[in-house]
Amino acid sequence: MSRNALDPVTFVVVGASGDLARKKLLPALFALYSQGFLPRDFRVFGFARTPFGDAEFRARVAENLTCRYVPGEACADRIREFLERCHYTAGQYDSADAFLNLYQAMREKEGRQERNRVFYLSIPPQVFLGVAHAIGGAGLVQCGNRRVWSRAVLEKPFGRDRASSDRLTAEMARVFEERETYRIDHYLGKEVIQNLMVLRFANLVFEPIWNRAHVRRVTIEWKEDIGVEGRGGYFDAYGIIRDVIQNHLLQILALTAMERPASVTAGHVGDEKVKVLRAVPPLTPDDVALGQYTAGTRRGLPHPGYTDDPTVPRDSRTPTFAAAALRVDNERWRGVPFVIMAGKGLDGGGTTVTIHFRDVAGNVFCDRPLCLPANRLSIRIQPDEAIMLHVVNKQPGLQVALVESDLNLRYRAAFDALIPDAYECLLLDVLEGDKSLFIRCDELEAAWDIFTPLLHAIEARGIAPEPYAFGSAGPAGMRRVLSRA
Amino acid sequence: MSRNALDPVTFVVVGASGDLARKKLLPALFALYSQGFLPRDFRVFGFARTPFGDAEFRARVAENLTCRYVPGEACADRIREFLERCHYTAGQYDSADAFLNLYQAMREKEGRQERNRVFYLSIPPQVFLGVAHAIGGAGLVQCGNRRVWSRAVLEKPFGRDRASSDRLTAEMARVFEERETYRIDHYLGKEVIQNLMVLRFANLVFEPIWNRAHVRRVTIEWKEDIGVEGRGGYFDAYGIIRDVIQNHLLQILALTAMERPASVTAGHVGDEKVKVLRAVPPLTPDDVALGQYTAGTRRGLPHPGYTDDPTVPRDSRTPTFAAAALRVDNERWRGVPFVIMAGKGLDGGGTTVTIHFRDVAGNVFCDRPLCLPANRLSIRIQPDEAIMLHVVNKQPGLQVALVESDLNLRYRAAFDALIPDAYECLLLDVLEGDKSLFIRCDELEAAWDIFTPLLHAIEARGIAPEPYAFGSAGPAGMRRVLSRA
Repeated sequence: MSRNALDPVTFVVVGASGDLARKKLLPALFALYSQGFLPRDFRVFGFARTPFGDAEFRARVAENLTCRYVPGEACADRIREFLERCHYTAGQYDSADAFLNLYQAMREKEGRQERNRVFYLSIPPQVFLGVAHAIGGAGLVQCGNRRVWSRAVLEKPFGRDRASSDRLTAEMARVFEERETYRIDHYLGKEVIQNLMVLRFANLVFEPIWNRAHVRRVTIEWKEDIGVEGRGGYFDAYGIIRDVIQNHLLQILALTAMERPASVTAGHVGDEKVKVLRAVPPLTPDDVALGQYTAGTRRGLPHPGYTDDPTVPRDSRTPTFAAAALRVDNERWRGVPFVIMAGKGLDGGGTTVTIHFRDVAGNVFCDRPLCLPANRLSIRIQPDEAIMLHVVNKQPGLQVALVESDLNLRYRAAFDALIPDAYECLLLDVLEGDKSLFIRCDELEAAWDIFTPLLHAIEARGIAPEPYAFGSAGPAGMRRVLSRA
Repeated sequence: MSRNALDPVTFVVVGASGDLARKKLLPALFALYSQGFLPRDFRVFGFARTPFGDAEFRARVAENLTCRYVPGEACADRIREFLERCHYTAGQYDSADAFLNLYQAMREKEGRQERNRVFYLSIPPQVFLGVAHAIGGAGLVQCGNRRVWSRAVLEKPFGRDRASSDRLTAEMARVFEERETYRIDHYLGKEVIQNLMVLRFANLVFEPIWNRAHVRRVTIEWKEDIGVEGRGGYFDAYGIIRDVIQNHLLQILALTAMERPASVTAGHVGDEKVKVLRAVPPLTPDDVALGQYTAGTRRGLPHPGYTDDPTVPRDSRTPTFAAAALRVDNERWRGVPFVIMAGKGLDGGGTTVTIHFRDVAGNVFCDRPLCLPANRLSIRIQPDEAIMLHVVNKQPGLQVALVESDLNLRYRAAFDALIPDAYECLLLDVLEGDKSLFIRCDELEAAWDIFTPLLHAIEARGIAPEPYAFGSAGPAGMRRVLSRA
C-alpha cells in the first residue's frame, strides 16, 4: 500500500442513489475497508437528487454490503464503523448551491485537516459537464495544492464520437487536471484481463507463437442471454458499439495485440496500447454486421423483442448486436483478423478472447487437409474465469484416435484466494494513484478514430440492423463477417 | 482392426508360469478378447518348466483376469470361454523333445487349418537363444510360408552391450525373420508415451518452442520408492543403466527429441529415432553419477540396503541409481542437456519427462534476473498420467503478485475411456503387424553405442557407486551432473 492511501481521504460519490453506486462502488469501498486498504481517516459523501437523510442513505448502503472478507461476528462491527463514515447530501446536479451545501457538509465532518478527495461521477452523460463545473465552482477541487490531490473518476460514455469525446476531455480538463482524471473501463479491473499481460510477458511459451506466422484469427466475444429488460433508455441512445465494443472489447484487443511495454508502469503500457490502436484502420459499414433482437424465447419461455420494450422507441434502429473484423496493420498482425462480436439476447452469455492458431502444415496424423482441429487458447473473462489451451491428444484406448482436449486453468479451482470485484481493484488504484488500468485521453482518441467513421455512416445512411430472434446465435450477417475473416 | 487379426491365431507364451505372463500377458490377452479384438479362432499355449495340467494352468491364469471391459455377469462367461482356449505344455527350455511335445499339442488343438503364430519369449536371457533354436528345430516357425506368419516377441535384456546384442540379433535371425521379430519396450505401449508424438506433431503450439532457442534443459526421470525386495538376481547382473536407462528412458528421449517423421508408419518413425540416437555422443564415466542405496527408511520404517538383500552379493557394485547428461548434437538440440535419471529406493516414485524452457529475457514484471520461475511442460507417464504446462499467472487479488500455476490435463479426469495397459496395446500391435511401437535392430544398435563405452569403462575400472540412503533424493554426485547440465 502506498503512503498516499494512508493519508486522509474523502470519497465523494455523485449519483449515490444509483444502481452502480449501491451495488458496486459502496460495496467495493467496504471490501477495501474491511481488508485494511483504506486510510484510518476516510469519509464517504453521497450526493444525488433523491432526498435522503444520512440514516436512510446508510440503510440503503448496508443492503449491499457483504462479509466476504470479514470473518463471522466481526462483520457487523465493520459494517457499523463503515456506515458511520457515510454521509449524504441531496441536491440537483445543475445547482451550484447544492454543491456548496455538499462542500459545507464535507467541511463540517472533515475538520480542519487538508484531505485528499476522490469525486466519482456516477451520473448520466448529459449532466456530466454540468456537475464537473459545479464541483469546480463550489471550490471542492484542490487544484494547485501540492500537499493534497483531487481526483475525478469517470465512467463511459466518454462522448458519442471523436469530436464529442474531445469536447468532454477539454471541458473536464478545466476542472480536473488530466493526470488526476481516471477514466474507468471496469473490464480492465477484471482478474483475467489483468492476467493477460502477465500471461504474455512473464512466460516464454506464448510469445514465440503470438504473431501472424502462427495465429489465424483472434476472436473477442461478449454475449448476453438477456435483453434490455426495461432499462432501454440509456442503451437505446448509444447502442452496442458504443456501449461495449468501442471501450471494453477494444481494450481487450489492445492488451492482446500490443507489443511488450518497456515496463508495466502506466505510461509505458498506455504508450503501447495507443500504438497498437493507431495501427487499426477505421471501420466502414462493409466491415460489420449489425443486428437487433426480435421476439424469441429464453429458457423455453417467450421473450419480447427489443422494440417491444416499454423503454425503447417502437421504431428504434439501435443495434443490440454487432460483429466486425478489425485489422491490426503492423509487422506482428497484418493479415490476422480480430473478430469482435457483442450482442444482447443471444443463446448464451459470457466474455471470451480466443487465439485461433493455424493448422499444422503437413500433419502426419491424417492425409486430409484440416483433418484435425487447430489449437486455440481461450481466455474466459466471465463467468467462471479460466484459461484453456485446446490441444490435440491421443484418445486413450487401443486404437489411434485423436481428440481435442484442453490444458486448463480454472480460477476457482486453482486459486484459493477470493477473486476481487473489478471495482475493488480499480478504486484502490485511484486511491494509490496507479493509472495503469485507466484510459488515457490519447487512447480514447485512438479508440474513437476506429469507430467514428462507421458510427457516422450508419447514422447518415440510416442503416437498419438485421433482425435476429431473441435466444438465437445472432443475425445471419455475422457469418458474412466471419467468412471474410 | 486389420484382416490379419481376424485370421486364426495361436499365441504361444514361453515362460507361461512366470510373473510377467501371469500378471500382464494373459490378462492383456483376455482384455483384448473381451473387447472383441481377438479372432474368433484363437488358442493360447503356455509352455514352461513347472509341471501343470491344463486345469491347473487355467486356474492360475484365472486369478489375474479382471472384468474391466466386460459388464457384470457376462464376465464369468467371457472368462470361461477364454480359459477353454488356454492350454499348457511343460518342458525344459533346452529340450528339443519338449518343443516337439508342444508342437504335437498345438497340432491336436489347432486342427488342419494353417494358423498364424505368435511366440512370446518371456524367459531369462541365458535361455533365450536355446529356446529360439528349439522352437525352430521343432518346426514351429512357418518360414517361407506366405499364407501365414510366425512372429517372435522379445523383451529386454537384448544383450549386455553392443557386441552381445548384435550376436543375439544375428542368432535370432536364424530362426525368425527380422521383420517378424517384435522387440518390446513396454514403455512404448504406455498412453502418455504414445501421446508424445501426437502432442508434438498434431499441434501447432509446441513445435515453434521445441528447440535450443527456447529449451534450456530436458529431464527424464524414473524414480522408484522401493528397492529390489528379494528379487535382486536379475537386477544385480544388469544394473540400473541396462535395466531402465538404455531402453525405456532412451526411447523417451528419442520420441522427445526426434524430428517430425515423414509419416507415422513404423518405418518412418524408426528412421527418425535412429537418426536422433546417432546424434547422441557416447557417454563416458565423467558424464554420469552412479549410486547404490544403503539402509534407510521407507514411510518411517527401517529399510535394508541393497547389499543387505539376500538375493544380492554382499560386495555388489551394481548401481541402483544413475544420472547422466546426454547431448543431442544436432541443429535442434546442440547445447541443451537431456538429463536422464533413474533410481530405486528414492524419496518418491514415478516417471516424468519435463521440458524446461528458458527464462524470459528482459522480464517486465521484475527487475531482478531469474525472478520468475521459467515455464515447464511436464509429461507424467506414471502414475496418474498427466500433461502440465507450468506458467506464470497473476495471483488473483488486489496486489500484483505473480504465481506459478499450471494448465493441466489429467488423464483420469479428462478422458472417460479406460486407460488400457501397455501390454494390451503392444500385443494387439503384434497381432496386427504394426511395428511402430517396437524396437528395430538398428535402433538397438544405436542405443547400445551410446552406453557401451560407459558400461565397459565402469567394469574395467571397477568404478564403485556412491552410497545413498534408502528413501533419500539420491547420491550427492547427481548434483554434479545437474550443475554441469
